[in-house]
Amino acid sequence: MVVTDPDVLGGYRQDRAFDPDAGTALALVRPTATEQVAAVVTWAHEHRVPVVPRGAGTGLSGGATAQDGALLLSTERMRAITVDPVTRTAVVQPGLLNAEVKRAVAEQGLWYPPDPSSFEICSIGGNAATNAGGLCCVKYGVTTDYVLGMEVVLADGTVVRLGGPRLKDSAGLSLTKLFVGSEGTLGVITELTLRLLPAQPPQSTVVATFPTMTAATEAILAITGALRPSMLEFMDSVSINAVEDELRMGLDRNAAGLLVARSDAPGEHAGHEADIMLAACEKAGATEAFRTDDPEEGEAFCAARRFAIPALERKGPLLLEDVGVPLPRLGDLITGIADIAERRQVLVSVIAHAGDGNTHPLIVHDPNNADETARAHLAFGEIMALAIGLGGTITGEHGVGRLKKAWLPDQVGPEVMALTRRIKDALDPYGILNPGAVV
Amino acid sequence: MVVTDPDVLGGYRQDRAFDPDAGTALALVRPTATEQVAAVVTWAHEHRVPVVPRGAGTGLSGGATAQDGALLLSTERMRAITVDPVTRTAVVQPGLLNAEVKRAVAEQGLWYPPDPSSFEICSIGGNAATNAGGLCCVKYGVTTDYVLGMEVVLADGTVVRLGGPRLKDSAGLSLTKLFVGSEGTLGVITELTLRLLPAQPPQSTVVATFPTMTAATEAILAITGALRPSMLEFMDSVSINAVEDELRMGLDRNAAGLLVARSDAPGEHAGHEADIMLAACEKAGATEAFRTDDPEEGEAFCAARRFAIPALERKGPLLLEDVGVPLPRLGDLITGIADIAERRQVLVSVIAHAGDGNTHPLIVHDPNNADETARAHLAFGEIMALAIGLGGTITGEHGVGRLKKAWLPDQVGPEVMALTRRIKDALDPYGILNPGAVV
Repeated sequence: MVVTDPDVLGGYRQDRAFDPDAGTALALVRPTATEQVAAVVTWAHEHRVPVVPRGAGTGLSGGATAQDGALLLSTERMRAITVDPVTRTAVVQPGLLNAEVKRAVAEQGLWYPPDPSSFEICSIGGNAATNAGGLCCVKYGVTTDYVLGMEVVLADGTVVRLGGPRLKDSAGLSLTKLFVGSEGTLGVITELTLRLLPAQPPQSTVVATFPTMTAATEAILAITGALRPSMLEFMDSVSINAVEDELRMGLDRNAAGLLVARSDAPGEHAGHEADIMLAACEKAGATEAFRTDDPEEGEAFCAARRFAIPALERKGPLLLEDVGVPLPRLGDLITGIADIAERRQVLVSVIAHAGDGNTHPLIVHDPNNADETARAHLAFGEIMALAIGLGGTITGEHGVGRLKKAWLPDQVGPEVMALTRRIKDALDPYGILNPGAVV
Repeated sequence: MVVTDPDVLGGYRQDRAFDPDAGTALALVRPTATEQVAAVVTWAHEHRVPVVPRGAGTGLSGGATAQDGALLLSTERMRAITVDPVTRTAVVQPGLLNAEVKRAVAEQGLWYPPDPSSFEICSIGGNAATNAGGLCCVKYGVTTDYVLGMEVVLADGTVVRLGGPRLKDSAGLSLTKLFVGSEGTLGVITELTLRLLPAQPPQSTVVATFPTMTAATEAILAITGALRPSMLEFMDSVSINAVEDELRMGLDRNAAGLLVARSDAPGEHAGHEADIMLAACEKAGATEAFRTDDPEEGEAFCAARRFAIPALERKGPLLLEDVGVPLPRLGDLITGIADIAERRQVLVSVIAHAGDGNTHPLIVHDPNNADETARAHLAFGEIMALAIGLGGTITGEHGVGRLKKAWLPDQVGPEVMALTRRIKDALDPYGILNPGAVV
């Protein structure tokens, strides 16, 4: 079970944050059962060896970056799932991919909503550890809204079960919710009980391009003020062109921004809502606006949006942001990001889960150009500072990990950091769980 | 601000659990601002004086019962609210009643879903402290699903702000969610940021009576298996008759059970869903089944259900249960409760938020009859043990308070109790916050 081969370890050294400061781990373990996780953590606790838990390694904040002398604990081989259509819940092990969970529950006519762009390659355990979001969150909420219970291995190896397949449970502290989003710093999640919904109805889709960012943000606010779209995504000019370079789907390369908006209201109501969104885009000054009730055609536009990050990655290494603001400040955030990009002379492409104010500014830079890389990192920090100043968050759905840790105190303040530290120390007194992440 | 008049204090000695073991408080404070709460808690912390926070005093588990020598901290005078229709959020102080929050946001065309039966008299702060539920939870979730942020005064008087008006926020531990449902044991909530929805569409309503409990539970499973009702409530024969005694609305006094089911699907889809639910009731053997699209008529049947507890309280003091089970075990729970009632020779009326498996067995007893009272208390405990045995919870939405504390370890186990204790000790090392509740 224990792997020490440096070649294998190398493949587990980083997640998709590609932290250049990743350390060299002691060993890798890939347990298949909770008891093995408990045995590993008990041993690590006794010997004060750090443990870095990881799922599929697709994290974007460096939460799974290897540390010197640490045990890497990958949950990739814990892949069981049981679906109960009567309670509309699924019990899943953490190593299953989000897409595999979606497919397994779909076989029973059910739906697990949270849908990070990386849903085909990210693990459900990692989703819970980061409180991952996605495209449908604007209407359906984030991972924590779907976690009813879990099994978790604590820092001393104790296994506890929290919550269960019950929509309502006020018995004791809300510990399940505390572990969601704790990024492996409080325990290792070995099983999740997920709330499911009936299959999503077919969606109607609106795609619109805008000549200016102002027009696009006006359309966003008009849409969210009128109804609750099941998706409302934004791509800027740079990302439109990057996607078009790869997919050749006929996107307008001259547009300043593109919106993809969807409705999954029942029956013909999806079309009615799409009409309202189409009219809002036209009123805001869309150069082109297009509506389809064809699910396949709609899916193609969503695929374009999901493909934005991979397409931009082909242009060069990215520093990937995840800042969010209250919706009315979205325009200020986007304008402010453009100012930062200009001041620091770096290319910043903005894509966004526009409907919930969560944006992904992507800072493109050449790692062989030390000066540009330095300016990119300055912009990275300044964008977070900007979001904080607008009443926002440094991370909407990726987590703090190691990459964003230095900015967390600026967002939450010293009292909340002290409170966080008290909980961390109470649950992991020797600090063996994912040291260096979050706190 | 500090009240020591015993007559006034007497009115704050208990909540609606009417715990006979309530103590005598030192004094009552009714702050109007966060700074006053902080000053009170700072003083209490320095002098190691227990603080019992309370909202409107409508709790049913004794979470706000006065303790000897404690300060009673009532938030009833903290009643501000600001509604932001663009972000669809409201910032509210804890003393506002749930119904007042609903009304204030409705003025902006918005909806705060959680609706405990006591919504006209319970406070929003108490709702957050107990993670309160209600009738719409079967489709819309519980209080925690609507709390995006809060301001909370910690045990040492420190004021912290957690979360904010953002649908997505993965920055640091999920502390907001930890404080929801903590029943005043970790801090005093002084402000809440609530997520709102667009106004609920008009509902179609189905009412059906059943000759047997078996037929009623069959209908419940058929309905929840087919769709997501916006309400699915159950009343047994005793509660039907108690309500009919008071309201004279023509309920069938011979029925074994009554279901009220609603749909709020858009437009004519509410009617379609109501038809499906009506057919499910008829197929399960309903003696009468009736459907209305008239909101007022539908509301009258919901009012009957909401009035069940007050109507039964007029028959005599109640021991009010709040046990929940995974939905497929609902029939076993109801049968088991009948067995317990027969064995202990006490009258137990069962009403339920049937769609989410959360039941309220109401144990009627004569407090002047010591033997009957003893048997009622035995039944009270046995019903919780039954629920635990069925994979359920001792409290779905009322909280543990002091009344159910003895059964919490049986549900969650010693390891979770130890984990709970570690968090409690880390956040409230002198144990001044709501001592004797939950842990």
